[in-house]
Amino acid sequence: MATTDPPRARQARADETRARLLKAAIAAFGVKGFHGTTTRDIAQAAGMSPAAVYVHHRSKEELLFLIAAEGHERILAMVREVVGMKGTPTEQARELAYRFARRHASEHTWARIVNYELAALSPDHLAVVMELRRQINHELRAVVDAGVASGEFDTADPSITTVAVLSLGIDIARWYDEAGRWSPDQVAERYAELAVRMLRRPSGEE
Amino acid sequence: MATTDPPRARQARADETRARLLKAAIAAFGVKGFHGTTTRDIAQAAGMSPAAVYVHHRSKEELLFLIAAEGHERILAMVREVVGMKGTPTEQARELAYRFARRHASEHTWARIVNYELAALSPDHLAVVMELRRQINHELRAVVDAGVASGEFDTADPSITTVAVLSLGIDIARWYDEAGRWSPDQVAERYAELAVRMLRRPSGEE
Repeated sequence: MATTDPPRARQARADETRARLLKAAIAAFGVKGFHGTTTRDIAQAAGMSPAAVYVHHRSKEELLFLIAAEGHERILAMVREVVGMKGTPTEQARELAYRFARRHASEHTWARIVNYELAALSPDHLAVVMELRRQINHELRAVVDAGVASGEFDTADPSITTVAVLSLGIDIARWYDEAGRWSPDQVAERYAELAVRMLRRPSGEE
Repeated sequence: MATTDPPRARQARADETRARLLKAAIAAFGVKGFHGTTTRDIAQAAGMSPAAVYVHHRSKEELLFLIAAEGHERILAMVREVVGMKGTPTEQARELAYRFARRHASEHTWARIVNYELAALSPDHLAVVMELRRQINHELRAVVDAGVASGEFDTADPSITTVAVLSLGIDIARWYDEAGRWSPDQVAERYAELAVRMLRRPSGEE
């Protein structure tokens, strides 16, 4: 077990460099935006030379794509985990909105890049990300439809309500400030309740 | 009445040039973002020379500030108009959410710039815009508080619910696409209902 494994060690070093570069790119894009960031900024934040960055990635756009694709894949996995759990549509919608909101508050720098810089992606890369977004929407839509079928939910337009529930969570990335008065958990708790309210019929209506 | 008025005519021409420049800046920022837009792009879109732009505005940042300040002033005026109308807190919240959503759908290019490029403002200019945002929030918050006092609304945290109602409307600017399936009026109608649901106690809860 103490023997070295050179190919594996090389792979581990490459993975580590890749992770460091992505982290540096997120930090740089977060401060200056995608268009205001140079490859030199990213290299500096990663403690590498610009030439070394090009060894790993062909362009700034490729880094943006990796950040966006990986971020959307993590959200889709989280949504699928919740949808796979036992529970009523109300419980699933609440849990999904809770986790979605908490993620957009606690990782707001990442979420801003992932949501507001998509126009900078190449058409092929944008198509990959849009397909992931379609799948995320599709998973929540199934929960909404199940709740309508069970009579728990009442919505004039399940399609726009699905968009609205996700939209409410995404916009946390714009306004959230960790120096503000609410922790990610507090935002998530309130937002989970608001999402359920959006789906259910309000009291006092016939 | 047919006499000419040279100073007034000059003023009218200056106003027209200013409006043309702001319109060109909104179009250019909308396509390339603030950081990706040059003064030359704005001049070209306005059919002017870059030197002529500098006669009217000292910098790209000043144009961004004028767009943001004017946009927020229009929203504040709209919100105050609704709050000044007769009606219950539910009716006022519904009307406010309706107009807010419709504006963010029909003028989504403008709304994206006004909401997502604020980090590019100078500290003094940002302070002016943040004060306008504080006043917009304050007006809605008064409606929420009135509804809680009258028993129409039920919210665990009026402060975060106020943020959420505005946030839901603002995020329309990110996702709205006029080539999509919903008109601004349709989005506004659904969103007004969702805003009211966020404020009222859902049915089936004790």
